[in-house]
Amino acid sequence: MKNDKKLSELGEFGLISRIASGVSSSGSVITGIGDDAAVTVSTPGMQLVTSTDMLLEDVHFRRCWHDPYRLGRKSLAVSISDIAAMGAHPRWALLSLAIPADLPLTFLDDFTSGFLAMAAEHGVALIGGDTCSSRSGLAISVTIMGEQFPNYILRRSGAKPGDEIWTTGSLGDAALGLKLLEVDSDFPGSEGQVGCGDKVNQYLCSRLLDPSPRVLVGLALAESGLVSSMIDISDGILADFGHIAEQSGVGGCLRLDDLPFSPAFRLIGDKLPLFPYQLSLTGGEDYELCFTASPESRGEIAECTKKCGVEATPVGIVTSFPEISVVRSDGTSYGLQTKGFNHFT
Amino acid sequence: MKNDKKLSELGEFGLISRIASGVSSSGSVITGIGDDAAVTVSTPGMQLVTSTDMLLEDVHFRRCWHDPYRLGRKSLAVSISDIAAMGAHPRWALLSLAIPADLPLTFLDDFTSGFLAMAAEHGVALIGGDTCSSRSGLAISVTIMGEQFPNYILRRSGAKPGDEIWTTGSLGDAALGLKLLEVDSDFPGSEGQVGCGDKVNQYLCSRLLDPSPRVLVGLALAESGLVSSMIDISDGILADFGHIAEQSGVGGCLRLDDLPFSPAFRLIGDKLPLFPYQLSLTGGEDYELCFTASPESRGEIAECTKKCGVEATPVGIVTSFPEISVVRSDGTSYGLQTKGFNHFT
Repeated sequence: MKNDKKLSELGEFGLISRIASGVSSSGSVITGIGDDAAVTVSTPGMQLVTSTDMLLEDVHFRRCWHDPYRLGRKSLAVSISDIAAMGAHPRWALLSLAIPADLPLTFLDDFTSGFLAMAAEHGVALIGGDTCSSRSGLAISVTIMGEQFPNYILRRSGAKPGDEIWTTGSLGDAALGLKLLEVDSDFPGSEGQVGCGDKVNQYLCSRLLDPSPRVLVGLALAESGLVSSMIDISDGILADFGHIAEQSGVGGCLRLDDLPFSPAFRLIGDKLPLFPYQLSLTGGEDYELCFTASPESRGEIAECTKKCGVEATPVGIVTSFPEISVVRSDGTSYGLQTKGFNHFT
Repeated sequence: MKNDKKLSELGEFGLISRIASGVSSSGSVITGIGDDAAVTVSTPGMQLVTSTDMLLEDVHFRRCWHDPYRLGRKSLAVSISDIAAMGAHPRWALLSLAIPADLPLTFLDDFTSGFLAMAAEHGVALIGGDTCSSRSGLAISVTIMGEQFPNYILRRSGAKPGDEIWTTGSLGDAALGLKLLEVDSDFPGSEGQVGCGDKVNQYLCSRLLDPSPRVLVGLALAESGLVSSMIDISDGILADFGHIAEQSGVGGCLRLDDLPFSPAFRLIGDKLPLFPYQLSLTGGEDYELCFTASPESRGEIAECTKKCGVEATPVGIVTSFPEISVVRSDGTSYGLQTKGFNHFT
């Protein structure tokens, strides 16, 4: 697909054809890219589950950190993660790009390859989008549509006092990866060079730059019937469990010593002054799933997630008192500086 | 809803709640704004028809021209127009906003009011979206989902040689409205002041700033079974019929003297040096419908559109030779300077 053509030579419709040429066909897609709208067939009995995300250059990503292939993957992954959090099957995606004049066509080719690779991994068909010129940075908008039978769909609103709070995978890796990339001079271990040099750093950075949406485990948890509420962790477990708490009319208590860390996080995080809780509680972009379930289901839940190749850890308890606290193993309360990312504030 | 609060005080989740507070409930929406994804119920037997559009400040709109209420209306209208062009029922919308720090909260309130007013006019439910901060201008991304029974859905690909080419309404008004707003000093009649002063100017500018998607007539045409292909005119009839021609493997001949002009367009357009064909053939943002149908259906088509309160005019013939020509009434060919808007070129 690569050559030395410029976007200005290719034009808007040439670019759309170029993107469409990489899209594989799907039985559920009647009309894909190239008409006023896409036409798709839903699975009888399933409800439609839809989400959209916008990613802006220098707000959500930097071109100096995010190579185009992984940026393409991530642009879709963060949306797929929302479908995973509903316990639904991701199906169709739309991709809009506002493209600055200086963006090389090879960047767009690599971005598209990454996007379509992520789509293929999760059985998602790219069915449409929009392209236009941008006077500032690259802007990416992705809409994802999924499906699930009504009884299986998981929301933020079902948590009950006494339920356990769980998370899949490990927390804080992406936030620590970001710290490595920021090459903060105060940050031990980075020594003024761009991070991601060795394997440990590479793992942490890849958690930020190439997240894996937890689709299979989300589906398995939904279809197990054991889970009362679910959300994906994009702004830190504290903020995201906070959404569950708010919409369920409950509170929660997170146990500091039970938060799951990756070996890489422990290795690097040990050098952090605030090690390691701050990042794991409030760091963004983990794209793990946080969910709640009755303590009686602990064994079944662990088995269910293990079958999907994902560890899950109970990290707290849902309370009736509508506040969220974090406690150490000695029972004392852990104070926090921030509560996760919030645009505008 | 209005007060003197700033966006930075309100925060991301406050803004989302503020937008959500204006959304009315809909039977097809099981879970709306506020979860990881929205959950909707499709109409049994109907297929899903989905489109997305991005609107960028200083590319698609200017804050000095587009008041926020009409910008909100238009942001949704251009997407609804894509659903109308498929002959489908618009149902659900998602709205993403990247918001610059200097944008007053009253602007967002008025924008939202306009968006929701347009949604209400067409029975569309706002079910989700995304908000984030922008380092440059306001960026708006809208995804719209509609529905229709498979047999009624109209595509760009069904035009047959011998079919007549039709357009609803009048052409070129929006492009002339843009010229008025641009206050081109070479442009007779503008005299250095911002346009839209009198009623005639106001009409032309409102065609640009507050377009009406042709939903009812699109549905009526689709359900009549008389139409072979359809598209909405966003880039000028020449370019947009060009998409029909390309996807139908046909060509076409447009008759210059049959192009429909509004009285306002005639009045102002008479003062243009290129009057009036250039703008009506290649001017963007009319959001009329261009469609094709057998000449035998001429009477029925006219009656069908009239019932919807919309005039439609046959303006040409589909040809088997895959080129598009424009002819004057004396049979001579009309030369053209441009072929409608194309990003990047």
